Amino acid sequence: DFMNALEEVKAAFGVSEEELETAMKHGILHFSPYIENILNQGALAVDYIKNAPEASLLSVLLHGPPGSGKTAMAAKIAKESEFPFIKLVSAENMIGFSEPSRIQYLQKVFTDAYKSPLNIVVIDNIERIIEWSNIGPRFFNSVAQALMVLISKEPPAGRRLLVIGTTSQRSIMSQLDLKQVFNRELAIPNIKDHQELGAALKASRVFDKDSDLTSSLNELRGITGTDEVGVGIKNVLTTVGQAKRDRDNFAGTFADMMAQQMAASN
Amino acid sequence: DFMNALEEVKAAFGVSEEELETAMKHGILHFSPYIENILNQGALAVDYIKNAPEASLLSVLLHGPPGSGKTAMAAKIAKESEFPFIKLVSAENMIGFSEPSRIQYLQKVFTDAYKSPLNIVVIDNIERIIEWSNIGPRFFNSVAQALMVLISKEPPAGRRLLVIGTTSQRSIMSQLDLKQVFNRELAIPNIKDHQELGAALKASRVFDKDSDLTSSLNELRGITGTDEVGVGIKNVLTTVGQAKRDRDNFAGTFADMMAQQMAASN
Amino acid sequence: DFMNALEEVKAAFGVSEEELETAMKHGILHFSPYIENILNQGALAVDYIKNAPEASLLSVLLHGPPGSGKTAMAAKIAKESEFPFIKLVSAENMIGFSEPSRIQYLQKVFTDAYKSPLNIVVIDNIERIIEWSNIGPRFFNSVAQALMVLISKEPPAGRRLLVIGTTSQRSIMSQLDLKQVFNRELAIPNIKDHQELGAALKASRVFDKDSDLTSSLNELRGITGTDEVGVGIKNVLTTVGQAKRDRDNFAGTFADMMAQQMAASN
Amino acid sequence: DFMNALEEVKAAFGVSEEELETAMKHGILHFSPYIENILNQGALAVDYIKNAPEASLLSVLLHGPPGSGKTAMAAKIAKESEFPFIKLVSAENMIGFSEPSRIQYLQKVFTDAYKSPLNIVVIDNIERIIEWSNIGPRFFNSVAQALMVLISKEPPAGRRLLVIGTTSQRSIMSQLDLKQVFNRELAIPNIKDHQELGAALKASRVFDKDSDLTSSLNELRGITGTDEVGVGIKNVLTTVGQAKRDRDNFAGTFADMMAQQMAASN
Amino acid sequence: DFMNALEEVKAAFGVSEEELETAMKHGILHFSPYIENILNQGALAVDYIKNAPEASLLSVLLHGPPGSGKTAMAAKIAKESEFPFIKLVSAENMIGFSEPSRIQYLQKVFTDAYKSPLNIVVIDNIERIIEWSNIGPRFFNSVAQALMVLISKEPPAGRRLLVIGTTSQRSIMSQLDLKQVFNRELAIPNIKDHQELGAALKASRVFDKDSDLTSSLNELRGITGTDEVGVGIKNVLTTVGQAKRDRDNFAGTFADMMAQQMAASN
Amino acid sequence: DFMNALEEVKAAFGVSEEELETAMKHGILHFSPYIENILNQGALAVDYIKNAPEASLLSVLLHGPPGSGKTAMAAKIAKESEFPFIKLVSAENMIGFSEPSRIQYLQKVFTDAYKSPLNIVVIDNIERIIEWSNIGPRFFNSVAQALMVLISKEPPAGRRLLVIGTTSQRSIMSQLDLKQVFNRELAIPNIKDHQELGAALKASRVFDKDSDLTSSLNELRGITGTDEVGVGIKNVLTTVGQAKRDRDNFAGTFADMMAQQMAASN
Ligand SMILES: Nc1ncnc2c1ncn2[C@@H]1O[C@H](COP(=O)(O)OP(=O)(O)OP(=O)(O)O)[C@@H](O)[C@H]1O
Ligand SMILES: Nc1ncnc2c1ncn2[C@@H]1O[C@H](COP(=O)(O)OP(=O)(O)OP(=O)(O)O)[C@@H](O)[C@H]1O
Ligand SMILES: Nc1ncnc2c1ncn2[C@@H]1O[C@H](COP(=O)(O)OP(=O)(O)OP(=O)(O)O)[C@@H](O)[C@H]1O
Ligand SMILES: Nc1ncnc2c1ncn2[C@@H]1O[C@H](COP(=O)(O)OP(=O)(O)OP(=O)(O)O)[C@@H](O)[C@H]1O
Ligand SMILES: Nc1ncnc2c1ncn2[C@@H]1O[C@H](COP(=O)(O)OP(=O)(O)OP(=O)(O)O)[C@@H](O)[C@H]1O
Ligand SMILES: Nc1ncnc2c1ncn2[C@@H]1O[C@H](COP(=O)(O)OP(=O)(O)OP(=O)(O)O)[C@@H](O)[C@H]1O
Ligand SMILES: [Mg+2]
Ligand SMILES: [Mg+2]
Ligand SMILES: [Mg+2]
Ligand SMILES: [Mg+2]
Ligand SMILES: [Mg+2]
Ligand SMILES: [Mg+2]
Repeated sequence: DFMNALEEVKAAFGVSEEELETAMKHGILHFSPYIENILNQGALAVDYIKNAPEASLLSVLLHGPPGSGKTAMAAKIAKESEFPFIKLVSAENMIGFSEPSRIQYLQKVFTDAYKSPLNIVVIDNIERIIEWSNIGPRFFNSVAQALMVLISKEPPAGRRLLVIGTTSQRSIMSQLDLKQVFNRELAIPNIKDHQELGAALKASRVFDKDSDLTSSLNELRGITGTDEVGVGIKNVLTTVGQAKRDRDNFAGTFADMMAQQMAASN
Repeated sequence: DFMNALEEVKAAFGVSEEELETAMKHGILHFSPYIENILNQGALAVDYIKNAPEASLLSVLLHGPPGSGKTAMAAKIAKESEFPFIKLVSAENMIGFSEPSRIQYLQKVFTDAYKSPLNIVVIDNIERIIEWSNIGPRFFNSVAQALMVLISKEPPAGRRLLVIGTTSQRSIMSQLDLKQVFNRELAIPNIKDHQELGAALKASRVFDKDSDLTSSLNELRGITGTDEVGVGIKNVLTTVGQAKRDRDNFAGTFADMMAQQMAASN
Repeated sequence: DFMNALEEVKAAFGVSEEELETAMKHGILHFSPYIENILNQGALAVDYIKNAPEASLLSVLLHGPPGSGKTAMAAKIAKESEFPFIKLVSAENMIGFSEPSRIQYLQKVFTDAYKSPLNIVVIDNIERIIEWSNIGPRFFNSVAQALMVLISKEPPAGRRLLVIGTTSQRSIMSQLDLKQVFNRELAIPNIKDHQELGAALKASRVFDKDSDLTSSLNELRGITGTDEVGVGIKNVLTTVGQAKRDRDNFAGTFADMMAQQMAASN
Repeated sequence: DFMNALEEVKAAFGVSEEELETAMKHGILHFSPYIENILNQGALAVDYIKNAPEASLLSVLLHGPPGSGKTAMAAKIAKESEFPFIKLVSAENMIGFSEPSRIQYLQKVFTDAYKSPLNIVVIDNIERIIEWSNIGPRFFNSVAQALMVLISKEPPAGRRLLVIGTTSQRSIMSQLDLKQVFNRELAIPNIKDHQELGAALKASRVFDKDSDLTSSLNELRGITGTDEVGVGIKNVLTTVGQAKRDRDNFAGTFADMMAQQMAASN
Repeated sequence: DFMNALEEVKAAFGVSEEELETAMKHGILHFSPYIENILNQGALAVDYIKNAPEASLLSVLLHGPPGSGKTAMAAKIAKESEFPFIKLVSAENMIGFSEPSRIQYLQKVFTDAYKSPLNIVVIDNIERIIEWSNIGPRFFNSVAQALMVLISKEPPAGRRLLVIGTTSQRSIMSQLDLKQVFNRELAIPNIKDHQELGAALKASRVFDKDSDLTSSLNELRGITGTDEVGVGIKNVLTTVGQAKRDRDNFAGTFADMMAQQMAASN
Repeated sequence: DFMNALEEVKAAFGVSEEELETAMKHGILHFSPYIENILNQGALAVDYIKNAPEASLLSVLLHGPPGSGKTAMAAKIAKESEFPFIKLVSAENMIGFSEPSRIQYLQKVFTDAYKSPLNIVVIDNIERIIEWSNIGPRFFNSVAQALMVLISKEPPAGRRLLVIGTTSQRSIMSQLDLKQVFNRELAIPNIKDHQELGAALKASRVFDKDSDLTSSLNELRGITGTDEVGVGIKNVLTTVGQAKRDRDNFAGTFADMMAQQMAASN
């Protein structure tokens, strides 16, 4: 039927619902009011592309530390838009691609997008797509250049495009003049302190009893001697999962492992 | 008919009216007397190529910050010339082109131009055409070299050529000896202060009431604490379009977003 | 028969028992309580992949000085897991491989792993796989980038993967952002002092009489004037084997050679 | 007829009269006694190759600021020689040539020259032929090396060759050991001061009345506050041509534009 | 016959007696007790590979100044081993080999060696095999990486391998982590002083009379004003051979030339 | 006849008499006793290769400033040897050769030389053969490496080889370890002072009268204010030839041009 056919077309050119779901497989936990704020700004951008009479192109850069939830946020904004064409561009689909192949791939994504009236292209982890390396430094300059041109290129008449980029290397993007091609930027934060950490863990329902959660956080505070956390939501969720394997000492192991994560992040 | 045939030829070799229009899709707003001045200088250069007995070649470099309106200005000058051959050379048409392909493309543009008696070649965003990257630094040296030679090469007898280059990297062009091949340079400025910003917004008719404009600028002054602006006309126009989506708080959102633009530009 | 067929399949895709055995051909000597601790942490990671409901991917980096026993430890953890698919990725199987061939090889390893529900991929001596050289510095950036993406890529639904990396260049891995893709890290230590050295030699049964061992260690202490050792278990075992050829003066030659090893390590 | 045939042969291998004329299309204006001196030194070199019994090879490097008249001077000396083979080697004929193609082209020029008893090879703008870039720095080393060898290679028995090189990058030529392969060097100067500028403009007959010239120079002196000029004859002639388009204010516009040229040159 | 057949096989895969003899064509002169010591250490390594039950691989690095006798020493140790497979790997057999060809060549040497139970592979002048250049610095990184992996790779079951490397660039080998793959290192010294020089010359029987030798050394001491020498045995033997051509003044010329060698070495 | 046949063979593999003569077309002027000395040292090297029983290989490096007469000296020594195979290797025969072609060419020269019992290979201007550039610095490392190996490689049994290298970049050769592969080095000096300059000019018979020579030198001393010269014999001879074209003022023009040469050399 028609809905099926539509779904097939969507899968062929853009992204399936499933792919977007995987990108935010632990959902979006509201551990801080800032989370809502980011989603609102994303919705505003979507609304502009959808409804502003003069609009044809807008680009937003989501930047934040590794594991802070950039990809999940981009997926959430994209999914909420309900645009007919959504494409998630990721380095995972370019492993071993040469520089020209990467450019060709990117160019095709934009060409495909230009076929539909309303589009979102998510360019995830730009530093990986350009193979950025701190040592050298080295990177695919022609890929970076192609991105600069593609992201700021006006779509053809009657087409509207929202580009969402993500990066954990904002300062590199800026040095490369890649940050500057985006019309806006939104910061994705780490989990800042014990209050936010508690909120996240509570929302995730990983601890059976609230008292276990409290005692685990106390233990963590005992080890680190501080209320600050500075770890991304992604790492927190992986850590809590591992710690839970230690059935006898979940709380203690979680505190230990979180302390290691905090040390590694600094 | 003949006019149609002519149009086809034009489209084949040079640029269509439409392409020039797109390059200045928000028109030229006279937010400062300097705008008129630039257009006059452009007209003088056009007149020289058209009428000076000894003239065969002239080159002008338009330089200014990102989004200051360089491309629109070049398009305006070119369009006003009413020359039979106008070519807009842009990195958008060279995505993924190798270094030799770029040179071949550029060489063809000049060869095509030499077929017509009066020509304008606009070389837009030279830094993108040579794939300039601050990190490295890296760039296509042979493309830069080809540009140097092509821009200063005398057209064949009976042919006259005006080259208009644009760049937001004047100092790089100078280090590369590319600035030096231009006979003249013209600076395209950002919107300097609240007076110019007001003039631009008024001319663009985006605010329904003048009082809304005034209160929005007051709000902006309240946030930034200064009368300086330092943002390009292109970014101002995109920002005002987005802010307008916030129907309840257009003025406030515009002030907020402009403040972010100003922070990002510095 | 079935067991034979299974073995063949295993050999084709993954690693044979024999290969794992070779990697730890002198067994695991418990010269310090820390050895047990590492093995426990390894077992915890294995248990997580095997049993945690939400688990699909975990990565652990074993780092330590050259010859400290990283490969043997990785082999031990892998073997104890009894997972159906275990793959040992080593630079030995990539001698003379170009950068693209290395990436293709790595990608195939992960693709093979995704075919089986429970998998371990050991990536041994990452610095050799990316051809790291201190001088330059030089390395295969695209291989490093492919590793970054492969190690953090979610396996397909229903597949679970434990990645164990080893390196003696932790600080380089960190500069390359390769350390950061691992969820955890475990340090493999050198033999620290005479007590641990004595324990290792005793456990290895290389000295016929305990008094010989004691007098050899005394001699070593006489030469070096210190109780510290700072040599990897691998080098200690090779040295003791060579020294034993000097039938008349085993103890003395061992002390001499160990002193040279200590000098070379610093 | 014979003269025609000769002309064809000349065109095939060497340079046509026309090409030499184009290179000095505004003639040689004697704005300073030094101009005569350079031409005399050139004539001496020509005479040596023509008449000295032991002569077979001589090379002269003309160096000076951009637009100072190097190419015109080389063309003048070459034309006055009336040698049967004159070849003007220019980057204009090598746009987009790869490094090997450039070398092949250069080698062919010398091979052709060796066919005729008396030859001049002008190698114009050596920095462009080797694609010199200040950033990097980058250049075609093998082209530079080929030039070094070709310029100092003895022609075959019975052949005599004068090589005239031009460059605005004398210090780079020296660092590359390219300056050192020339037997002599001659400096081509900018227009130094108002006296030389007046002489040049008078000789060029661009001002209808001497009094206009005087007042324009006075205006220029008023703007810059100095008698020094430091601009090449080429730029002066282009500037005066443009200014003349401003029929109402030729003198004033010329002064303005000259002041800009002086600022840009420093 | 069999012995002939054997010899042919040997020549095909490994090294002929003759090749080893050429490498030490002036024999091994015992100018210092240290020479004996090196040979003993070499013999110990040979014995380990031959006889130790657990042995399969050992690697020894001979390092010393240019011309100190490294290649001759390696050849001597190899020859004394009487192992069935001895292979001398030298840059002489790789002139003009590309990086991949060098790696292929090296890999074949090890593959050949794995066919025989007892093997020696001499890798002579590693800095030349990797094309080390101080300027840059530049070198074949992939060759260095292949060497690192090959030298530390366990031979297959039942095969035993002694690798002897030589280098005059120990510190470079160390920076490249190539020194660290060797299990042991042995230093080959220059001729230190007049006593060792006298011993070497006496042993070489190049002076007909002892008194000539004494007077020549006195002359040398007169020129240099020191008893130190610091020249390799190879250079001493070449120098004495040249000086001998000066029949009238052998002693004097030898002293002069040795003084030059000493100056050049410092 | 036989002599003819011999000559043909010589021309095919090695160098013709004519080529050697061209290399020293102004003969060898004995402007200082040092000239004799160099020739004697060359003869000693020739005699060693010819007559020493143990000799098979010797290499001598002639180094000196540009134009000091290195090539002529090498040609003279080679010619005097009367060896059956003499090969002059020059960058002139490698213009535009890629790195592998250069290596192949060099390797062929040595292979050819190994066919004849007594050989001289002159490797002229090594810096040009490896395409040395001060900027970068850049050079053909593999060519330098091949030279290092070829120059120190023992010829096959029964073959004897003298290698003569020339360079004006001794310090670069030393940094590249290329100087060190030569067994000896001989310095070729510039013309030091007025006494040597006078001797050279007198020997060259370029001045008709001795008094002209004297007065010209006096004039030169007047200009430079010193007795030092520091210019190579090659440049002196070219300069004097040019100056002679100025029939009216030979002495004065020579003094002027020599002063320029001296300025350019410093
Ligand atoms: N508020 C939140 N924002 C983002 N992600 C969240 C939030 N709450 C829970 N999550 C979950 O946390 C995970 C975030 O991981 P994600 O891959 O998006 O991080 P990332 O910043 O893109 O990491 P990386 O730097 O490795 O690319 C997802 O599984 C997501 O479902
Ligand atoms: N006075 C003006 N000068 C230039 N452009 C103007 C002016 N007034 C309005 N505009 C509009 O502003 C926009 C200027 O954008 P344009 O692309 O020319 O900027 P740009 O400097 O070329 O940007 P970039 O640095 O990204 O290349 C155009 O849409 C143009 O119609
Ligand atoms: N406690 C131990 N831990 C690890 N290896 C041990 C231990 N006790 C004995 N061994 C033996 O020591 C050797 C360790 O060598 P291994 O190759 O694992 O070291 P490595 O750190 O990987 O060396 P490299 O840095 O060269 O890769 C193995 O033969 C292993 O059997
Ligand atoms: N005295 C003069 N010397 C040289 N050129 C002169 C002189 N008088 C007038 N001219 C004219 O000035 C122009 C000099 O331009 P030319 O191209 O030779 O300069 P250039 O130094 O080669 O410039 P570039 O640095 O761009 O190569 C020519 O058109 C020439 O006819
Ligand atoms: N004690 C000795 N040790 C080594 N070589 C000796 C000794 N006595 C005499 N010789 C002779 O000296 C020469 C040493 O030359 P060899 O090529 O081995 O030196 P090397 O250090 O390898 O030189 P290079 O640095 O050029 O590779 C050989 O001819 C060898 O026969
Ligand atoms: N004593 C001398 N030594 C060398 N050459 C001399 C001497 N006397 C005269 N000549 C002549 O001087 C010239 C020296 O030029 P030659 O090409 O050998 O110099 P070069 O040092 O090789 O120069 P370059 O540095 O350019 O290679 C030759 O023509 C030679 O005949
Ligand atoms: Mg992400
Ligand atoms: Mg633009
Ligand atoms: Mg290991
Ligand atoms: Mg010129
Ligand atoms: Mg050696
Ligand atoms: Mg020479």
